[in-house]
Amino acid sequence: MPTAPHVEKHFTASAVVRDIVIGMADGLTVPFALAAGLSGAVDGTAIIVTAGLAEVAAGSIAMGLGGYLAARTDAEHYAAEKTREERETVEVPEAEAAEVAHLFRGYGLPEATVEAVVAAIRADRGRWVDFMMRFELGLEAPDPARARNSALTIALSYVVGGLVPLAPYLFAATAREGLAWSAGVTLAALLAFGYVKGRFTTARPLRSAWQTAGIGALAAAAAFGIAKAIG
Amino acid sequence: MPTAPHVEKHFTASAVVRDIVIGMADGLTVPFALAAGLSGAVDGTAIIVTAGLAEVAAGSIAMGLGGYLAARTDAEHYAAEKTREERETVEVPEAEAAEVAHLFRGYGLPEATVEAVVAAIRADRGRWVDFMMRFELGLEAPDPARARNSALTIALSYVVGGLVPLAPYLFAATAREGLAWSAGVTLAALLAFGYVKGRFTTARPLRSAWQTAGIGALAAAAAFGIAKAIG
Repeated sequence: MPTAPHVEKHFTASAVVRDIVIGMADGLTVPFALAAGLSGAVDGTAIIVTAGLAEVAAGSIAMGLGGYLAARTDAEHYAAEKTREERETVEVPEAEAAEVAHLFRGYGLPEATVEAVVAAIRADRGRWVDFMMRFELGLEAPDPARARNSALTIALSYVVGGLVPLAPYLFAATAREGLAWSAGVTLAALLAFGYVKGRFTTARPLRSAWQTAGIGALAAAAAFGIAKAIG
Repeated sequence: MPTAPHVEKHFTASAVVRDIVIGMADGLTVPFALAAGLSGAVDGTAIIVTAGLAEVAAGSIAMGLGGYLAARTDAEHYAAEKTREERETVEVPEAEAAEVAHLFRGYGLPEATVEAVVAAIRADRGRWVDFMMRFELGLEAPDPARARNSALTIALSYVVGGLVPLAPYLFAATAREGLAWSAGVTLAALLAFGYVKGRFTTARPLRSAWQTAGIGALAAAAAFGIAKAIG
């Protein structure tokens, strides 16, 4: 079978880009909306900055450590399933082989080919287990350094994102003045961030820009409304 | 090949359980930590309840809509990759067939079997594309209703989680009294939630309980420290 030179460039957002997106999207949005909400209830900017920074501290730790534990849980889940598949290829090899056969029959392979494929795959236990992990369970071997890097990337992105909407309140005389600047700066940042995110994950970056800014505006409006109603 | 009756019970957390976990983990943690932080800076409970509810509104919208757009982006990514694979099986069929062959050679199949497998798979274009999606790219066809359900589940879980740490401040005379009750109620809820989450995702639910409560305590301590330092 002749092979033409052919390289596929399927985009898969790297894990780091995804962590930055996760952290920064919430970091820009939630402290912005919280500060906007408090601007509807108080006049001074000091309490807004205090609450905003407290939220950034809480949010970055919750998301960063949450990301760390989620990545570690994924790694443990993979290891546990692998041990299980290894045991099953020893204890119930015919049943496991039948699963491989079933999978290929579903792709229309004739019975003789199915048997040849199953015989070849089960000939090497390591490859057999690897095959079951990837094709039966759809699990990829996780990167061991990912848990720690993921935690740090998400947390830092949240802090960087969160400082953008809070900075204007440091310089504003009143909460309303701070809100006006914060809304301008943050919506511009959300548009830019949404555009870049859209370039990485979809074919329509402009739509991503409007949607990202829209979420921020909606969250801020809801927080403002609630704080105004009860404040 | 005889097939023994054999049903595998690999646990895969359902999408709904995962969305509840995502929403409730942050809903319990972040409003709790924010309220705790503000307790270090202010005496009255009114501003804490206002800020807390504003955060719950902002957080639930940001997470819910964020989940909605992420699920929709996944669905669009899948559709775009599928269109691409369909085009490639028409335009560069030998190159795509070579990719299938390469995959099976990696599992140690003899050349004659590889050729038989490739011939069977490429005989039906629909199955061929399906095979490439699943085994080359590792993508599963997304559930179309998932985006909306995911958004609602995450947002509601965040609101339910967020009301737990805020409720005590409604009944407390001072911020410090509210904090004491809030910490007790929320840490108990985080322990219970972490335990249940651990039952679903790992073999060690007790460890999950302590870790989940630990994140909440750490986030609250950091928020309290920051608010105290600047408040």
